[in-house]
This record gives sequence, structure tokens and C-alpha cells, in this order.
Amino acid sequence: MTTRRELLAGAAGLLGGAMLAGATTAHAAQQGAAAAPPPDVPPDATKLQGAPTSAVGSRSPFVTPARTPVGEVTGSSLTPLHELTGTITPADLHFERHHAGIPKIDPARHTLLIHGLVARPLVFTLADIKRFPQVTRTHFVECSGNGRAAYRDPKPEMTAQKVCGLFGNSEWTGVPLRTLLEEAGAKPAATWFLAEGGDACVMTRSIPMAKAMDDALVVWAQNGEPIRPEQGFPLRLLLPGFEGNANVKWLRRLELGTAPWMTRWETSKYTDPLPDGTARQFSFELDARSIITSPTVPQQIAKGTWPVSGLAWSGRGVIKRVEVSTDGGTTWHDAELQGTPLPKAAVRFTHQWEWDGRDATLLSRAIDETGYVQPTRTALMKVRGPGTDFHFNHIVGWRVTPDGHIAFHGET
Amino acid sequence: MTTRRELLAGAAGLLGGAMLAGATTAHAAQQGAAAAPPPDVPPDATKLQGAPTSAVGSRSPFVTPARTPVGEVTGSSLTPLHELTGTITPADLHFERHHAGIPKIDPARHTLLIHGLVARPLVFTLADIKRFPQVTRTHFVECSGNGRAAYRDPKPEMTAQKVCGLFGNSEWTGVPLRTLLEEAGAKPAATWFLAEGGDACVMTRSIPMAKAMDDALVVWAQNGEPIRPEQGFPLRLLLPGFEGNANVKWLRRLELGTAPWMTRWETSKYTDPLPDGTARQFSFELDARSIITSPTVPQQIAKGTWPVSGLAWSGRGVIKRVEVSTDGGTTWHDAELQGTPLPKAAVRFTHQWEWDGRDATLLSRAIDETGYVQPTRTALMKVRGPGTDFHFNHIVGWRVTPDGHIAFHGET
Repeated sequence: MTTRRELLAGAAGLLGGAMLAGATTAHAAQQGAAAAPPPDVPPDATKLQGAPTSAVGSRSPFVTPARTPVGEVTGSSLTPLHELTGTITPADLHFERHHAGIPKIDPARHTLLIHGLVARPLVFTLADIKRFPQVTRTHFVECSGNGRAAYRDPKPEMTAQKVCGLFGNSEWTGVPLRTLLEEAGAKPAATWFLAEGGDACVMTRSIPMAKAMDDALVVWAQNGEPIRPEQGFPLRLLLPGFEGNANVKWLRRLELGTAPWMTRWETSKYTDPLPDGTARQFSFELDARSIITSPTVPQQIAKGTWPVSGLAWSGRGVIKRVEVSTDGGTTWHDAELQGTPLPKAAVRFTHQWEWDGRDATLLSRAIDETGYVQPTRTALMKVRGPGTDFHFNHIVGWRVTPDGHIAFHGET
Repeated sequence: MTTRRELLAGAAGLLGGAMLAGATTAHAAQQGAAAAPPPDVPPDATKLQGAPTSAVGSRSPFVTPARTPVGEVTGSSLTPLHELTGTITPADLHFERHHAGIPKIDPARHTLLIHGLVARPLVFTLADIKRFPQVTRTHFVECSGNGRAAYRDPKPEMTAQKVCGLFGNSEWTGVPLRTLLEEAGAKPAATWFLAEGGDACVMTRSIPMAKAMDDALVVWAQNGEPIRPEQGFPLRLLLPGFEGNANVKWLRRLELGTAPWMTRWETSKYTDPLPDGTARQFSFELDARSIITSPTVPQQIAKGTWPVSGLAWSGRGVIKRVEVSTDGGTTWHDAELQGTPLPKAAVRFTHQWEWDGRDATLLSRAIDETGYVQPTRTALMKVRGPGTDFHFNHIVGWRVTPDGHIAFHGET
């Protein structure tokens, strides 16, 4: 039990006293001390007139979160999870995964064709689509390759961004896909549909009609504003809880049929090779997962109280519980969930940890409404083998040594 | 009752047919056709390699939302509500209200002093504060002067931004103020506290201790990332449901006492002059309010189906119901609320409207969990008089003429 007096000793200075060295160090690390040198800042800002209002704001020069890597036309960039908090991923920091770069599209000329097993093939403009009844919902998007490096070859210097950064959580606005398909008169014989994107690889994925009739959306807005180009501007498919690639960006065509199209993107890619030589295919739903985002690499911490904070989500519904261990999995504590967890959306969890300054290993595991418990890497590898290429949702964590250094701990 | 066939006729083109002229016009307006000319866009983006991944994303060149006015050191800029959707206000478009501009602050040197009626005066660094148990919550911030122009002098050309743009809704992360005050040993005799900001006007406001012990927060993050400079970087007070000005930005000092300090900002400003010569003071809680954001000025619409969509909120708790009228208040329809409304947070409402092409007046009114019903301008003016300076939460709306033109309707 931590008393208020201990918290005080650990975290704040009496008036006139010195600040705790450990806290100051952690602070410098969080603010990206290794980044650009601090800009010119007055010793006392109250003695100078401040800056005026602007059309569009900018981050403080002391705040420099960045996706990485940059310059990948066929590749990805990762969300800087270790520099973020709350549950919303800022749109300009949301991970990217492109197979032929980001197309430049004029929204006034962009259309969505719906054809195949329908009574009335239709072409919708963006303006047409915006006239149907709209919904706003919060959902995560996660690349099914998220965590590949941490599964195959965990390294101590990995950050939460590197371990799990093919993940974002946003508020989306659009129309239910069902509405558009009913408009076109989807035929009962249709059991699958093909979604096609307007990028240079003409991304195509086959999706069961059941998803279309359940909670699939065609969205044009993310976090209150039009979707960013790298997220599919002006229109993307949003399949809550399904692997990211199936949420086709720059959506331009939907075709209804009776079987999957067996495109390149669901045969040579986005299948899970198994140890017995077969492969899992069309494994759309993302299993429950969690990651501690603070304290993590590259933070340096001191003895005392620390909030262990992270994100949890499940492609199968609502997160019911997140457990945190600070002793490498010997004992587990129920973390506090912030707000009411939403289906197929990220929830922020926190657990207040009193660090005694000894070796510690921080782990988190998510449990969803189906009762599914996030597995260890050992358990996952037993089923999937070391060479599997997608859906790495195993428990990961962070080792803290007595000097306050933090390292990624991936061999759970 | 709108049938699917009618929706189709109103909103989409059969394959090979022409798009509906009205929809296309509305679309052009929504995309800001009056802004910069469209950039170079390939006729078929699938024939060109796209752009690569980047560290920080940008909006599409076709999407140019902007706060306005710019260049105000002592003044405000307004959120472009008519260009946004969902409930989250993008951080770089969130309204500003400064009394001496935006200070430039080094977060590593910023501190928060807590003193006055406390057992232990304390100074916290930002790093110290981040070590206490954290919470993440969604709340709106609204300037108490929001809507002054629309109340005093409504004009047909006003946009939702102009009418109600001193409003934003964000996910905030921080620590309960109560935690910090208990840490300092707040004395039971303390009934008020003073909050002081680090800008050049050294903004100071007096707040009842009851709010500190209820849901007040000291926050450092907004929408997943560190607060932007214009929103109080690195630290601001967040008083859910209280008028914006009391949510002191660039927070640097809290003093506990037994009476309000009667600062300039709660005597000559932020009081409501009443018709009888007296003034309402310390009227912190913002009454329930709503505004339709689409279709609104400067959209141009055509006969057919339209989603009437807007935002509603209350400083006293949860929004229970939003009603929409399309006939100037003769009849009202329950709007659909998106998601579960949260206390002291914005909820998006929608109502599908079948426009017959005749004169129409769209209105919305919010009802909160206390049973409070958003009043008409006439009712509000009767109580407050024409010269009142703050807290204008009256019903507003939009007139649609048979030519599809939309004008602000403020005289309710």
C-alpha cells in the first residue's frame, strides 16, 4: 500500500527543495532530448507578448513525435506509441502500410462502383454517399503484420513503436456498407464481396458478405476531419476488428460474388504459413492484444511510484480485463480501464506500480468478452511455428534493471 | 417514410447515368471550392506510383479547414465546425482564445506551485505530475463568449464556425486535481482556489474547491499527444463543463484560500451583465446546447434525402435527447445519438431528412440529464437582456429556400 507520504517522496519536491533526479531524467527522455536542440525560449514567458492565433496549429518545438521509417513506397511506417497517450491516434501519426504508395485523388472525381450480384449496378460519388444516414464509431486498425520483428527476433532496444506500431485507434464517420449494398439490391446468392482500392497496385481483397451486413462501414472521416491521404482519402472500407489490409483504402469498387477471388493479397500475402506446410487463410479477426507504452524504452526511471500505462484491444469485441504483472508473470494485477471499453476499439489501461529498485519485468495481457486470453510467445510459437508471417498477438513486456534502464522483453 | 427506391433516386446514379446535379454542387461547396485551385492530379492514380511514407502526415490538398480569424494576440480563432464531422476536434483546428498570446515554454523548466491553505507547499515538475495515477477522459471546452455575434446580431451568411466555433471536444489525459491537492495536504478551511497561467497576462481565475474535489483535472495530453501550445502546453487545468476561460492554460500556480480573489478576469470580464443593472458572477457551468453543422452555410442542396447532423453537449452532465425540427419548431423529431453520450462531452446527433424542395427551417435543441431544455433566443433574451456578454446557448438553425440556398436562422 502506497501512502501519500511515499508518493510525495517519490514524485515531488517540497517548495524550495531539489527535484527528484530520477523524475527529471525520465522527463528528458520523454521529451525526446536526443532530438533537435531546444528553440529559443524566454526565461520568463510572462514578460513577453505571446504568439497570435493561427489558421492551423503546430506542435510545440519540444514535441517531435514521428512515424518511422520514411520514404517507403512499398512498405510501412509505425505509430510512435511510446510518445502517445490516451486512446486516440493523431491522424498525422497513424501508421501507414502501402503496397504502391499513396495515390493523389481528386475527391470530386472519385467514385465507388457497386456491381456483380446486385439488382442495380450503381456508381456513387462521394457527395452521393454523404447523403445516406451516417454513423460515427471508434475502432482500431491494425496491420496483421504488426509485431513480426518482435516475434521473430526480439531485441532489447526495441521501442513500443517498433514492437507494436502498426496500430492506430480512431473515430470514424461514414455509412454502413449494408446501406449501400441494399441500395444496389444485393442478391441473396452473394456470399463474398471484392473490395478494390484506387492505388497503383489496385489492392483487392475478398470479404464475406456476413461482415458487410454486420458492422462494415464506408468511411470518409477520421478523428473529426476528412481521412488523410495515407489512410485512404477520400474513401476507405472499414471492417471493425478485421486485419488492416482488408480495410481497403482509396476504395473505388465493390463486386458481389459467390466465392473469394483468391487475389495475390490473400494468397501469396496475408496468409499464415503453419509448421505443417499448410497455411491459415482468411483469418480476418484480430485476436486480443495489449502493450504497455509507458514506462518503456527509451525511458530511464528511478525508484518510486510509476503509472504502468498501455493499450488493449480485440477484433472480437470488448476488452473485459487487462492484467499487469511487474514480476515477469508470477503474479498479475487487474489494471484500471479508462472509460467504458468499446467493441473493437482500443482502451487505455493503467496500473500504479511502486518500484523498489530491484530487477522487474513488466507484462500486460488482455482478456476479451469471448474469454480469450492473450497468449505468451512460447504458446503462440507452438501453434504457429517460428516462420508464421501474420497475427502476432503474444504477450510482450519490458525489463527494468536496478540502474533504471528499460529494455524490451519479448521472449515470453 | 423514405423507401430505398426514393433514396436511390435522390442520392445515386445508375451505372452509366449522370450524377445528381444537386449532390455534386453540395460536394463542391463542402470541399472548399473557393479555396486554392486543385493541385496536379493524375487522371488515373492507379497508373502512377504513389507517394512514400512520411514522418508526419499532411491533409489532402483538397482539404483546407482553417480556424479564423488569424493574427489575434488578444482575441480568438474559431473551430471550423461546418467542415468537421464526428465528435473529436482535431487539435490543430481547436478554437483559440488568448488574452496575451501563446507563450513559448520549455516543458523541462515548467513547474506547478501549490500553496496557500495547504500543509506542505509543493512545486511539481511535469515529470513529477506524470508519475501519479493517470486518467483519460473526453470533455468539451467552450468559451463562455461562444455565440455572442449570433445572439446580438444574427446574419444570414454566418457559418456554424462563426455562430458556434468557440467550441471543441477532445480526449484529455492527466491527473485528478484532487490527487495533487491531497499530496500538498489541502486544509479543510480552503473553499476556493486560484489558478494562474504562465502567459503574459498571467491569467488568474478563482474556482470553488468543490470542483477540485469532484472532476477537475490537470492535463498534459489532448487527443493522444502532448497538448498543443495554443491549448496550454505543457499543462492546463481542465474543469469539465465549466466555461473555457476557467480551464487555465499554461498552468503554473494553484493557491488555496477561503474566498474568490476577484481578479480582473472574473469582475470586469466573464460576468453576465443583466437588464436590471446587476451581473451574474461565477456562472461556471455551461448550459446544454446544440448546433446543426450539416447541411449549413455555405452548402447548396437539392431536393431529396439529407442527413441533418450536428453536435450537442451540456456542462451539467449527459445529453439525454436531441430534437430536430425541419419546420421551424412546429414539430420536433428525436435525433439519433451516435454512440453512448458521455458526461460533459459532445455527442454527434443525426436525423435523416427528406426535403420536398419547399421552404424549410432546420433547428436543433438539446435536453440534458437534469431535464434542462435548450431555450429559444427570445426566452434567453427575456432573462438576460440584449447586452449580456456570455453564455449564449439558445436554439439556432438554418433556413433553406426552394433554390437550395441555406442561410443562418438566429432569431428563434
